[in-house]
Amino acid sequence: MELGVCYYPEHWPQERWAVDAQMMRDAGLSQVRIGEFAWSRIEPESGKVAWDWLDQAVETLHAAGLKVIMGTPTATPPKWLVDHMPDMVALDRNGKARGFGSRRHYCFSHKGYKAEAARITRAVAERYGDHPAITAWQTDNEYGCHDTVQSFSPAARDAFRKWLEARYKTVEALNAAWGNVFWSMEYRSFEEIELPNLTVTEANPAHWLAFRRFSSDQVMAFNRAQVDILRELSPGRAITHNAMGFYTGYDHFDLGEDLDVLGWDSYPLGFLEMFRFSDEEKTSFARCSHPDIAAFHHDLYRGCAKDGRWSVLEQQPGPVNWARHNPAPLAGMVKLWTLEAAAHGAELVSYFRWRQFTHAQEQMHAGLLRPDGEPAPALGEARQAADMLEELGDIGAPVKHVAIVFDYAAEWMTQIQPQGEGLSALWAAFDCYSAMRRLGLNVDFVKPGVSLTGYALVILPCNPIVTLELAEALEHSQAQIIIGPRTGSRDADFAFPPELAPGALTELCGLTVALSESLRPGLENEGDGWAIARWLDHAEAGHAAEAELVAKDGTLASFRHGRVRTLATWPQGAVLETLVARAARDAGLPYEQLNGHKRRRTTSRYVFDFDCPATQFTVSPV
Amino acid sequence: MELGVCYYPEHWPQERWAVDAQMMRDAGLSQVRIGEFAWSRIEPESGKVAWDWLDQAVETLHAAGLKVIMGTPTATPPKWLVDHMPDMVALDRNGKARGFGSRRHYCFSHKGYKAEAARITRAVAERYGDHPAITAWQTDNEYGCHDTVQSFSPAARDAFRKWLEARYKTVEALNAAWGNVFWSMEYRSFEEIELPNLTVTEANPAHWLAFRRFSSDQVMAFNRAQVDILRELSPGRAITHNAMGFYTGYDHFDLGEDLDVLGWDSYPLGFLEMFRFSDEEKTSFARCSHPDIAAFHHDLYRGCAKDGRWSVLEQQPGPVNWARHNPAPLAGMVKLWTLEAAAHGAELVSYFRWRQFTHAQEQMHAGLLRPDGEPAPALGEARQAADMLEELGDIGAPVKHVAIVFDYAAEWMTQIQPQGEGLSALWAAFDCYSAMRRLGLNVDFVKPGVSLTGYALVILPCNPIVTLELAEALEHSQAQIIIGPRTGSRDADFAFPPELAPGALTELCGLTVALSESLRPGLENEGDGWAIARWLDHAEAGHAAEAELVAKDGTLASFRHGRVRTLATWPQGAVLETLVARAARDAGLPYEQLNGHKRRRTTSRYVFDFDCPATQFTVSPV
Amino acid sequence: MELGVCYYPEHWPQERWAVDAQMMRDAGLSQVRIGEFAWSRIEPESGKVAWDWLDQAVETLHAAGLKVIMGTPTATPPKWLVDHMPDMVALDRNGKARGFGSRRHYCFSHKGYKAEAARITRAVAERYGDHPAITAWQTDNEYGCHDTVQSFSPAARDAFRKWLEARYKTVEALNAAWGNVFWSMEYRSFEEIELPNLTVTEANPAHWLAFRRFSSDQVMAFNRAQVDILRELSPGRAITHNAMGFYTGYDHFDLGEDLDVLGWDSYPLGFLEMFRFSDEEKTSFARCSHPDIAAFHHDLYRGCAKDGRWSVLEQQPGPVNWARHNPAPLAGMVKLWTLEAAAHGAELVSYFRWRQFTHAQEQMHAGLLRPDGEPAPALGEARQAADMLEELGDIGAPVKHVAIVFDYAAEWMTQIQPQGEGLSALWAAFDCYSAMRRLGLNVDFVKPGVSLTGYALVILPCNPIVTLELAEALEHSQAQIIIGPRTGSRDADFAFPPELAPGALTELCGLTVALSESLRPGLENEGDGWAIARWLDHAEAGHAAEAELVAKDGTLASFRHGRVRTLATWPQGAVLETLVARAARDAGLPYEQLNGHKRRRTTSRYVFDFDCPATQFTVSPV
Repeated sequence: MELGVCYYPEHWPQERWAVDAQMMRDAGLSQVRIGEFAWSRIEPESGKVAWDWLDQAVETLHAAGLKVIMGTPTATPPKWLVDHMPDMVALDRNGKARGFGSRRHYCFSHKGYKAEAARITRAVAERYGDHPAITAWQTDNEYGCHDTVQSFSPAARDAFRKWLEARYKTVEALNAAWGNVFWSMEYRSFEEIELPNLTVTEANPAHWLAFRRFSSDQVMAFNRAQVDILRELSPGRAITHNAMGFYTGYDHFDLGEDLDVLGWDSYPLGFLEMFRFSDEEKTSFARCSHPDIAAFHHDLYRGCAKDGRWSVLEQQPGPVNWARHNPAPLAGMVKLWTLEAAAHGAELVSYFRWRQFTHAQEQMHAGLLRPDGEPAPALGEARQAADMLEELGDIGAPVKHVAIVFDYAAEWMTQIQPQGEGLSALWAAFDCYSAMRRLGLNVDFVKPGVSLTGYALVILPCNPIVTLELAEALEHSQAQIIIGPRTGSRDADFAFPPELAPGALTELCGLTVALSESLRPGLENEGDGWAIARWLDHAEAGHAAEAELVAKDGTLASFRHGRVRTLATWPQGAVLETLVARAARDAGLPYEQLNGHKRRRTTSRYVFDFDCPATQFTVSPV
Repeated sequence: MELGVCYYPEHWPQERWAVDAQMMRDAGLSQVRIGEFAWSRIEPESGKVAWDWLDQAVETLHAAGLKVIMGTPTATPPKWLVDHMPDMVALDRNGKARGFGSRRHYCFSHKGYKAEAARITRAVAERYGDHPAITAWQTDNEYGCHDTVQSFSPAARDAFRKWLEARYKTVEALNAAWGNVFWSMEYRSFEEIELPNLTVTEANPAHWLAFRRFSSDQVMAFNRAQVDILRELSPGRAITHNAMGFYTGYDHFDLGEDLDVLGWDSYPLGFLEMFRFSDEEKTSFARCSHPDIAAFHHDLYRGCAKDGRWSVLEQQPGPVNWARHNPAPLAGMVKLWTLEAAAHGAELVSYFRWRQFTHAQEQMHAGLLRPDGEPAPALGEARQAADMLEELGDIGAPVKHVAIVFDYAAEWMTQIQPQGEGLSALWAAFDCYSAMRRLGLNVDFVKPGVSLTGYALVILPCNPIVTLELAEALEHSQAQIIIGPRTGSRDADFAFPPELAPGALTELCGLTVALSESLRPGLENEGDGWAIARWLDHAEAGHAAEAELVAKDGTLASFRHGRVRTLATWPQGAVLETLVARAARDAGLPYEQLNGHKRRRTTSRYVFDFDCPATQFTVSPV
Repeated sequence: MELGVCYYPEHWPQERWAVDAQMMRDAGLSQVRIGEFAWSRIEPESGKVAWDWLDQAVETLHAAGLKVIMGTPTATPPKWLVDHMPDMVALDRNGKARGFGSRRHYCFSHKGYKAEAARITRAVAERYGDHPAITAWQTDNEYGCHDTVQSFSPAARDAFRKWLEARYKTVEALNAAWGNVFWSMEYRSFEEIELPNLTVTEANPAHWLAFRRFSSDQVMAFNRAQVDILRELSPGRAITHNAMGFYTGYDHFDLGEDLDVLGWDSYPLGFLEMFRFSDEEKTSFARCSHPDIAAFHHDLYRGCAKDGRWSVLEQQPGPVNWARHNPAPLAGMVKLWTLEAAAHGAELVSYFRWRQFTHAQEQMHAGLLRPDGEPAPALGEARQAADMLEELGDIGAPVKHVAIVFDYAAEWMTQIQPQGEGLSALWAAFDCYSAMRRLGLNVDFVKPGVSLTGYALVILPCNPIVTLELAEALEHSQAQIIIGPRTGSRDADFAFPPELAPGALTELCGLTVALSESLRPGLENEGDGWAIARWLDHAEAGHAAEAELVAKDGTLASFRHGRVRTLATWPQGAVLETLVARAARDAGLPYEQLNGHKRRRTTSRYVFDFDCPATQFTVSPV
């Protein structure tokens, strides 16, 4: 694994660049990501390009022996371009234009902007495509950041209609698939279909699901247009993009298919503060983060990457500026996070950013250098990490233990129709992941429908859509299987399957879900050290499965049918821990209940043991 | 009382219809409500009607001996109609259009849509008006659902101006009645008056009150247009509409005047979760509901109905889909709810819905059948309820104990000007109702101004407007009277009466309110086992009334003047319980402090005793 | 100090006016504020003025020996004017028009409305400018009330561009000052610059700061236009305006420069309920207010006033109508508040309002009279206060103890970029003020950059911008100095200073801030009876300052360098109390830890001791 850094030469005097390059080398960095927000400097006016400064920057980095990851600048179109086509911006869910003045002010469906994005991509690729310093390209930056995947613009509406026609062929098929007879929502042509926002009460969930799929596909098309140009003009270079944390606005398996390396941006402290952890967790982990946050994404995005190639394109080096509260990492955490990424198989950890900028939106975001150019604490930790990585050499291949089948559409569906407040497929997956990790096991995320051979234990946390391919993969595997709630409860268009849940898994699970309840927090059925909470599926009597976990009042919390366990309640807390420990035991996995906040990662060569709050880790040969 | 069910033949294959009809009969059901969302199937394109399927459905039900309640489909105009007149939709309080894609996408003031609604009503009534299966008509569906009574459209503005001119005759009269000299809000003509939304800070409360009255009147006009057509084309059939729970968007006394039977939709678990009950109540009653929720509406809508004829047009049979959390009722609750409606005098309890639909917005809403057509738990409970009802025979007439004077304008006024956060006339009425019910007494709701003879105890929970008719009705009654805060504090246009509160009741109450405070939760004056909380009226010294309840610090919580008690604090908790028990005693009522969550309903023939959490009830002859 | 009252003759019958005037005199009042909302009565139609009634009102008050403060009616333009120029209204941050129907429905940048405001001001000034009853003028009413300083209208955008051009001269200078190279936000001309709302994510903080400054300046220009007319047409009369509580929408030092007397509107109970006090404080102080709320504003606005001349133009006399909960003041509080204003040097306390109005938005706002014209409790307290004031005679000059340097831009900056949720320069200043007051000391607020001589102790609670003038004033003072967090961390355009924080104070403080963290509530480092909380600055090692307060884990909470203390954490709680007590001791100030909620105010003639919850105060000769 190499180390790198995100660098903005356009922010600093040219005479400083060589100093910076040398300092990067001294810190053990070998890669530098540049250019992704520089459109207004590359093309200050329409058609007037200014390559000199960027040529010079690339040369300076090259001269210092640094490899360059060049970004296409399409996340920040300049004002002159927006003024030229004001309708290029996205409209939010309320129909309001999301204008110029920050970033990501474009609609993925706007044809004019798509042409401009292709034009500037081609220009940059023509200029640097065969430069020896350039070893990789990043397309755009953080697709979907600031909730920008969905646009409710006329351009999006028109494209959505075309997308629907391609999917359903006839409007009668769409009406039938969506059940539009309900509430007289039937359409006579695709031209009658609007976007699902601005309705009096909620739109048809099938309508929303189609729009979520469409919106994801629009991102893919936008990205693919750049990938095609870069492949043509800069052959042999890796193409990457930086995904985000706990973000499901588009299907990352699809993105992974189109890239060589899937990158992501790791801000463990910011994510802890901003996402759904308890106040107690947010406080006690404030300076070290929850021990599963970074690893969850490492494993998820490794699973989404075409050939398992992934990297951290932005790594938090100190306080960030965008969370509700922004503490500094404990001394040693940056080093620990770097080694943790290595343990999970990253190709690169690139710190964001080199030097804290003195101006604008992110001026309170730490870098490896302070705003005055002096070293910040993380610089030394990067150097230490580089040394350790060199010592370790080849990390080895990951050992396969557990697979979690993750489906982006599952999360879209639980967002569209949670049925119980806050019940989410993404967080069900996170909780299953965390439960396995507390047993010291390796976890992979796999796309629904691919082979599951090699895994001793497979979990479907909450997967409403179960395709025949997925059902077959489960049947053909030898694994112990855990099936979470809502799994198999819907077809591809959000309708109930004729046989009810778990649909295509009915035989495998040996039961039928007759009725589902969602339960308010506090409404629980106590078991033996665990409780049914938040959700309860009632299985039809007389089926093949046997009751496994039974609450004190006789309510059934889980069922077992051969090697398949079905969880009738939400996968969380002690009921989940109980079930996964039994399944791990039955799977013959080398699990161990780890103490406290310790975590383990096992490769073919090493066992890594991490203790985040103690900022400690050990690496032992297998 | 009969049992019925809501049925959507258009959702299911025609070959299933006869099966369904027979199963309904087997379950003891005799009435079927159909058609209210079927516009797109009745008229798939403008002017092209398709009666065949509906003819067939009606014939099938008729052949099975079922009576049909036919709905007019005006709650769900099809897309082609909205495209034809895009400005037919309502605008929300922010001026945003509330478009197609769910239901109730129309403005009550839009002339074009009103004509279309009359046209389709006439078409359906012409087709089925004299069909022997049709025994009743339902107009539209749940007026006001999804907050749709108020529309801030140009159509509404124009109609509002005409409505104001009809009420006030001259703009000078309006300016004087509203006190528009304040903040230079005076108008020179009715054409200058806007809707009360989108102001810099709150609009004149008189402006809002007029708009609330206007909005209610627009619903009445819309409904009356359908009623007139139905009376003309389908004579002898009952006309009904389904009101909602804890909903005050229009005046239900006015609606009751125009109907033969006032129906309502009873979702006891959903209402518990979504309305202002404590977390403790929401959890402990999650699967049985608060014991007063259904009964409150039974009694309220019986009071609103012209001749006391009322029904439950939709009855929750299992989990719903629209609450924050959606648990299942305890086994036995559906039967209990059915008998409770009978005890309060319903003509019909109609379960919503026959079969859980596999698609669209309400796919998680339970029915008497599961989505796969198999029986759900409630089907058997309906059958048991039908048997019990047959056993009981005539329920007998309700016994009169207590009357609560309820005024829809009172709730509008406390919403417009709560003065203390959350202080609401509706919830004051609910709390008074609940306090009386815990004493085992029957409660009727009466319209302000009608005779109060026959009641031993009368409560005005919070009635800002006291007309001379109401004052006279109180004077002429022999009842013990309880007067709540804010009563008599305003005239019909939201101004103080010259003599201050309680206005027309000054002599009756024997006091004048000199000053009113609202108190934050926690700011209380303790009494003997009770406390002054949330509100405190200071009565002028030297008047006729005597202090009754006095807090430890000397603050006066209530006054007594002959048979009239005036409550100086908000009607809630122990202070309310203390006062109503004294009044019930003085009234000579057969009250009894019931244990726990038990409730009692007494008719001329039976005493019904309910214990919801235990899903038990007993019926004893008087 | 004199007493006065706000009076609306237009609300009451003309025959009552003389009665009211006599009652005012009997209550000890000598001044009457009128006219500020009366535009629709002064000019019922465009160009048709109606002076008769106002002439009569002025004569009636004059005849009773009352002095009149006349308001310009520009806060409430009538409907005919808005209909004439509908684009005169402000647009809110979402771009929505803020229409007619309440008050303050105008945009400060709209040229047409500015001309109309000047026209009506001139008309009133011509009519009454030399009337002997008129002793003062109030411009408009509560600039900024209901969040009306910022407008996002086309008129504001155009004016903002001109304002930017005047400030920055060239767009290149603006781009450099704001760091617009970040995210390609560079502009090619001032015409490309939009308002900072409606961006995808947050706009450049420099962009917001400029807009906040511009918005403040637009208020100043609007006010100055009226001042110029009034000075021309009514020479010798004081010009005033009524500022609000905890309000920072414009720079009150700037407003103070343009007025003779700075007034403010004191609603101690409403402010307690609506601003950021704890629930415990809100409940325990509900009827007496927090003991620093009124005094804080007295001292702040005395500091903002050009020559220290200030007044209370509106004083709460009973419950108000606009807080979440609206209790009544304890008996005696109105008298206490009146004397407290005198102790802080007010020229006038004017109660709002004379008689509670029977209609419209503020009908639940108490007055000195009830709506029926009878005395309310505060009338007698006003009379008692008048007697006490007469007894006391000259209050004496305030004694100088402590100065707090307050910068309106500081609050704008912490609102724009809090970095930690809720961290605010205004509330830091309030907490510093309160800490000094609990030591029994007098506190003055001073504008950044003016001389600090005469003060023994100076506090900069949180002042991101430190000008050279301010640095010099600190250096030249002999005072003990306390420097709060973020001080000196930014230049005038929101960029880091090259030397990092504390910028121009680096030498004085003897340290450099290398890194800043914000900390979630609960994340604390315990010290000896105090704790580091909410914020932590890390000082660079090896500088001149010594550690003073050190937490148990070794974290440094404050530094000392000669007479300068620098606080590394947020100024609140015990850590602030500890530091200010040490500084007061070192300053040789006569401080004393007061018990409970007692407060003291010392002048050259008297010591005032207040105990708000006990509604007691004593006045002792020095």
